[in-house]
Amino acid sequence: MMMNSEHIGRYPFTVEPFSEDYKGRLSWGFLGNHLLRCASLHAGSHGFGYDEMQETRHVWVLSRLVVELEEMPRTGDKYTVETWVSAIYRQFNDRLFAITGESGRVFGYGHSVWALIDMDSRQPMELEALPDGGFSSAVTDRKIPIKGPGRIRVKNTIPDCTLTARYSDLDINRHVNSIRYIEMMLDLFPKSLFDSHRVKRMEVAYSAEAYFGDRLSFFKDDGEDGSYAVEVRKQDGTPVVKAVITFDKEA
Amino acid sequence: MMMNSEHIGRYPFTVEPFSEDYKGRLSWGFLGNHLLRCASLHAGSHGFGYDEMQETRHVWVLSRLVVELEEMPRTGDKYTVETWVSAIYRQFNDRLFAITGESGRVFGYGHSVWALIDMDSRQPMELEALPDGGFSSAVTDRKIPIKGPGRIRVKNTIPDCTLTARYSDLDINRHVNSIRYIEMMLDLFPKSLFDSHRVKRMEVAYSAEAYFGDRLSFFKDDGEDGSYAVEVRKQDGTPVVKAVITFDKEA
Repeated sequence: MMMNSEHIGRYPFTVEPFSEDYKGRLSWGFLGNHLLRCASLHAGSHGFGYDEMQETRHVWVLSRLVVELEEMPRTGDKYTVETWVSAIYRQFNDRLFAITGESGRVFGYGHSVWALIDMDSRQPMELEALPDGGFSSAVTDRKIPIKGPGRIRVKNTIPDCTLTARYSDLDINRHVNSIRYIEMMLDLFPKSLFDSHRVKRMEVAYSAEAYFGDRLSFFKDDGEDGSYAVEVRKQDGTPVVKAVITFDKEA
Repeated sequence: MMMNSEHIGRYPFTVEPFSEDYKGRLSWGFLGNHLLRCASLHAGSHGFGYDEMQETRHVWVLSRLVVELEEMPRTGDKYTVETWVSAIYRQFNDRLFAITGESGRVFGYGHSVWALIDMDSRQPMELEALPDGGFSSAVTDRKIPIKGPGRIRVKNTIPDCTLTARYSDLDINRHVNSIRYIEMMLDLFPKSLFDSHRVKRMEVAYSAEAYFGDRLSFFKDDGEDGSYAVEVRKQDGTPVVKAVITFDKEA
């Protein structure tokens, strides 16, 4: 397969005031929303965006998101999100991200996995079996130097906290926003940890949707090496989201 | 006083995917952050922004925010935030906003009140007594057709809910973000209300700061005519924020 650099989307951003966390770094909420927006823009510019898929009653659903950062941009920093489709297999495709700054500076990388769901049957499509090769012409073999998603297990059976999904948690799909879970999970940790550490890697596995009024319980295993595993379950026990959040000592 | 239209800041935006609420309208969180960002950019371009004030150890603090909308922009809508200083009096200045779309379309208006706090004494400055007239040369007498901030009283003594301020609630000042309170207060209302109504007017009075770990209790009076008064208090009873949120039947 050739490197099709014309199939890499490039989207410039600047870290705006009021998008930072208390340490003056771009918040995970803003970064995550920007990654999803770039994914959507890139898919749209290649003819398989949200609007095009809606026409045949299909919708892209985020299944996995891994973001690993050498550094989080600060207020005023310019950064570019590059994104491309790196693989199509069975019911999934892999979309990668590189987040770079000026003069070759690297902020980090992302790896996401998406399924295309039939809105009527609620079943995922076989992406390799789509007519005319589906989106295979968009596949670009550029690699990134971070580990992709792995298996996440949480053993704790006593929730750290429980909250109810409300109005501001929802997005246009009427589900709790994928990135909002990241904020909710970061909110499990104490100030002392954030004061001395930064979030280096965020790995999230999405398995079900939550709706307005759903009670969400957060189970957390305190791991070794600064990694914590988190599982979010609905009131009926359905797992909604699992994650591994890795902290690193602040330089 | 002359209309100094060169003292009106104009900032264009587009409603981006992933910035909408579940009804497909720009979320109050994004709109609020954009208004604060425009206030900051405008103050900066006139020499009294965050950075310039920091040099003499002063900081602008938001005291009141009123936003009244005829309509909330949808995904893809372009909108322009215009902002200007309309009055300086004692320890406060008034900053107004007009939010307009294409071809003369009006989305709504905003009225904000700010104090300039001395970071060492924690006291507000007498803005009319500043050297060289302070910021008086920036004052522009353009009016807006909405009511300014009024007095807000909440009688209910039983909290609707209590939550703890966490990492993702904080901004670079290490306080709970002013706009985050708006999201928290909107989250007091049931889905049935949002399904049939829109938020027409949001009036917020900020009186104290909350920090990481503060327990915040939300008291709500169900008003007449679709208006609700809300008060947020800390664990020691200190009032932090009061608001009146007015809903209007969806057209």
